[in-house]
Amino acid sequence: MMTGKNYIGNVLSSTGKITFKTFNPKTNTENETVYTEAAGAEIEAAVRLADAAFTAYSQVSGADKSAFLTAIAQEIEALGSLLIDTYCSETGLPESRALGERGRTIFQLRSFAALVAEGSWVEAAISTADATRKPLPKVSVRSMLTPLGPVVVFGASNFPLAYSTAGGDTAAALAAGCPVIVKSHPMHAGTGELIASAVIRAAEQTGMPRGVFSNLNSRGIEVGVELVKHPKVKAVGFTGSVQGGRALYDLASQRPEPIPFFAEMGSINPVVLLPEAMEKNAEKWARAYATSIALGSGQFCTNPGLILGVKGNSLDQFIAILAKELANTVPSCMLHPKIVGSYENNKKMMADHSGVNPVIKHTGDVGINEGRPAVMTVDGATFSENKNLHQEVFGPFSLVVQCTHVEALTAVLAGLEGQLTGTIIGETKEIHQYPSLISTLQQKVGRLIFNGVPTGVEVCESMVHGGPYPASTDSRFTAVGTRSIKRWLRPVSFQQWPNDLLPDALKDENPLKIHRKVDGIPTKDPISDVVS
Amino acid sequence: MMTGKNYIGNVLSSTGKITFKTFNPKTNTENETVYTEAAGAEIEAAVRLADAAFTAYSQVSGADKSAFLTAIAQEIEALGSLLIDTYCSETGLPESRALGERGRTIFQLRSFAALVAEGSWVEAAISTADATRKPLPKVSVRSMLTPLGPVVVFGASNFPLAYSTAGGDTAAALAAGCPVIVKSHPMHAGTGELIASAVIRAAEQTGMPRGVFSNLNSRGIEVGVELVKHPKVKAVGFTGSVQGGRALYDLASQRPEPIPFFAEMGSINPVVLLPEAMEKNAEKWARAYATSIALGSGQFCTNPGLILGVKGNSLDQFIAILAKELANTVPSCMLHPKIVGSYENNKKMMADHSGVNPVIKHTGDVGINEGRPAVMTVDGATFSENKNLHQEVFGPFSLVVQCTHVEALTAVLAGLEGQLTGTIIGETKEIHQYPSLISTLQQKVGRLIFNGVPTGVEVCESMVHGGPYPASTDSRFTAVGTRSIKRWLRPVSFQQWPNDLLPDALKDENPLKIHRKVDGIPTKDPISDVVS
Repeated sequence: MMTGKNYIGNVLSSTGKITFKTFNPKTNTENETVYTEAAGAEIEAAVRLADAAFTAYSQVSGADKSAFLTAIAQEIEALGSLLIDTYCSETGLPESRALGERGRTIFQLRSFAALVAEGSWVEAAISTADATRKPLPKVSVRSMLTPLGPVVVFGASNFPLAYSTAGGDTAAALAAGCPVIVKSHPMHAGTGELIASAVIRAAEQTGMPRGVFSNLNSRGIEVGVELVKHPKVKAVGFTGSVQGGRALYDLASQRPEPIPFFAEMGSINPVVLLPEAMEKNAEKWARAYATSIALGSGQFCTNPGLILGVKGNSLDQFIAILAKELANTVPSCMLHPKIVGSYENNKKMMADHSGVNPVIKHTGDVGINEGRPAVMTVDGATFSENKNLHQEVFGPFSLVVQCTHVEALTAVLAGLEGQLTGTIIGETKEIHQYPSLISTLQQKVGRLIFNGVPTGVEVCESMVHGGPYPASTDSRFTAVGTRSIKRWLRPVSFQQWPNDLLPDALKDENPLKIHRKVDGIPTKDPISDVVS
Repeated sequence: MMTGKNYIGNVLSSTGKITFKTFNPKTNTENETVYTEAAGAEIEAAVRLADAAFTAYSQVSGADKSAFLTAIAQEIEALGSLLIDTYCSETGLPESRALGERGRTIFQLRSFAALVAEGSWVEAAISTADATRKPLPKVSVRSMLTPLGPVVVFGASNFPLAYSTAGGDTAAALAAGCPVIVKSHPMHAGTGELIASAVIRAAEQTGMPRGVFSNLNSRGIEVGVELVKHPKVKAVGFTGSVQGGRALYDLASQRPEPIPFFAEMGSINPVVLLPEAMEKNAEKWARAYATSIALGSGQFCTNPGLILGVKGNSLDQFIAILAKELANTVPSCMLHPKIVGSYENNKKMMADHSGVNPVIKHTGDVGINEGRPAVMTVDGATFSENKNLHQEVFGPFSLVVQCTHVEALTAVLAGLEGQLTGTIIGETKEIHQYPSLISTLQQKVGRLIFNGVPTGVEVCESMVHGGPYPASTDSRFTAVGTRSIKRWLRPVSFQQWPNDLLPDALKDENPLKIHRKVDGIPTKDPISDVVS
């Protein structure tokens, strides 16, 4: 059933010479299927098809795009256990995680389907004409969001479903009216091919133009580089390391025509433990954070990699319980031997820094490719002075920074780089004492959390999954939630445009019955002013 | 009254060694005041003040920001004839233009004042909690737009008021909650200083934090370069040439922390003349376009620099009348001898290209620093093959491209670079025959115009002044209209945040009475669900 080929539009193709296999970290063996990396001519063909499809696809109605996205969700469900088995064999993750991530992926597709079916997402704004205005008559100007053009989506190693082939970026771009070319992640090329087949079937069932979707295999960086540099590609979505994201961002911004490049990269997601909360509930929060740190072997971009507290007995108690809980956690398989290797290496480098003290003493063994959780401590001054300690350790790891008092903790926060999330654990009364801590943290992050854990990202309109650099390359956009559709859009104005040639969203009669702003006032009413 | 100094916050300062004067192109002499370029320490001081002001200013209420913007408008009006005289002495533009541009500048400030007083611009979105949801409880997540941080605004040579010191970018950034540092344009440093004094007085009257605004003089590029590279600067707005804009964009994107850099750059604003409209109304449109081309000596970014028509008697008639009208136009003074020099040089280079034919025969003389209007013709194939002919000639110039038929004209459009505007002149029935022409043009521009001229940019919510590269560096944002506030904002989510610590825009009770989206539904109602 698995072909190992690329989807160039709806055609399976494998003319290239570079091949590779995926790896099962649970069994520590290669999987069977041989995948063929997309050749230069295949990359060119996929981009040309996407470009050719753009005009037609950009004009597909919201109802029809909604049907397409819904069909993708149905086709993914129809893949059944083959998808789940393939996912597990390429990630080492348990079936429960595969099922959960599939559910999330389907929910995302359905959320975007609902968004475009309703239609108000285009932000239609209408300024009516006024021929009597002095000194100059006012012309009719109407604007709405329109798609940017062909979009490239890079699959993410840690979310083979929700942030890869038909994940958040793809769903958002297809909803926006942009054809998508996926650069499949080499670690889960089989999962990618299955999902791609579902998208292609859905496109055919719902009559979408040929080339609206392609899926390209890659072993190394070359396919991605070619795609980012291609003049007909108009935007790129990426999830991965700071190093990889920045290199591709640089390519995108140095093109003759620079394009938006959205990278969601590293984050250590600082968590502030306020003193009273620790006095009252050190044990409760230590248990909650042990679970959050170990979740999915810590392979989440929202993993709490940095915990800041005030020195004292309560913090000592928190650390002791956290260490004990994590030491007792059954280690779980990581995504790939390379990721395990990096994790062990990064932990060792962290422990080797002056002033850093590991606090977990393990007794049991870990299995092959399993990540052993780790907690280390350091004092606030040492942490602030050594930027190497601010680096993400991808895996079930957290560094606890012990500060002398809350003001010193705020100063440590002020020296941090941009982050996806920032969390405050505190008593409700206590948090009011530290306005400067809150404003400092807010300026560093995309999402603030009170008395919770950063893992678990709700898919909703109000979710911001992004943040100041290097959490992402553009803090003005989110990677999660329906608001992420804005990544793939630009506004266009229509001045004195004939009503019957306007897009439906801007026509006088408001045939889509969407929310619009008319001369600044939100309304669903038609335009009565026939003068416009 | 003019000091020639920099405003470092509300302190006048001139510790630098580089001085310069502005130039009166009408009298062809230097103006009297000596301006001192900002020294390195002054640049540093201005940025540090802005950074220090950011936390307080980002929390100023909409009502108070509105009062600040309104006070700026009042203080600009209070500058009276001194401002108008200074403007004219630094630009060669007539008093009527100075008055018009002042009116527009004040209108912009008042538009943003109204926007932030009303408050719904923050795009508040609320996802309520649901403790009963399975398999996991749903947390409360609320998001709104928040300011990016200190913003640098480059003054524009061609709009000393509306797109400089307190122009569109500054008004939008101050409305957003971002402190602003202006890199004043050297050609109108006096106008800049007067406006800066008005902003500073307004800031003091309305109790804004020190450092919310600074104005730095510059003779060359160094001050701008230092500002763009400064780590505490979080975004930049620029209006000017492709060469200058791209160089600064490259600096901004190559910083250790890349920042949004908005450059509104070159555009030749293609105008399509459909055959039936020419048969019926060649004379009417030729007169309208002669006026549009000559307006303000053609020194507008929306100047119609490219006119595309179908070969034949009607187009010949259009060209003949356009040439005659422009030949009879009284030439007007351009902004600076350097601009006149570039204009004459670019016209000559254009005329020297093979296949390009000038069509205006002048008889009269032009005065000193005046720009003589020019129209040239070329055939479609020659234009498509030679990208040099696609360059902007800044001034009262237009190139008429003669195509063999409408399909050939569409192919010429397909080969164009990104543009601010695209215009179609046609009979209402005729335009329906060319859907491919319309979609091709739409993909190239930020604003489509039917049966009008591109000059004259309405300041309203639905205006898009921007477009695909190189019209701007980021087609997702506009430089004109209240939508431009989005340049200076990023969304932040608040998860399970205590209600009394939420920004007012997100509080349960909706104290600002703004439009919000609650679980996807637009409403001004408070949140009744106390569970959240």
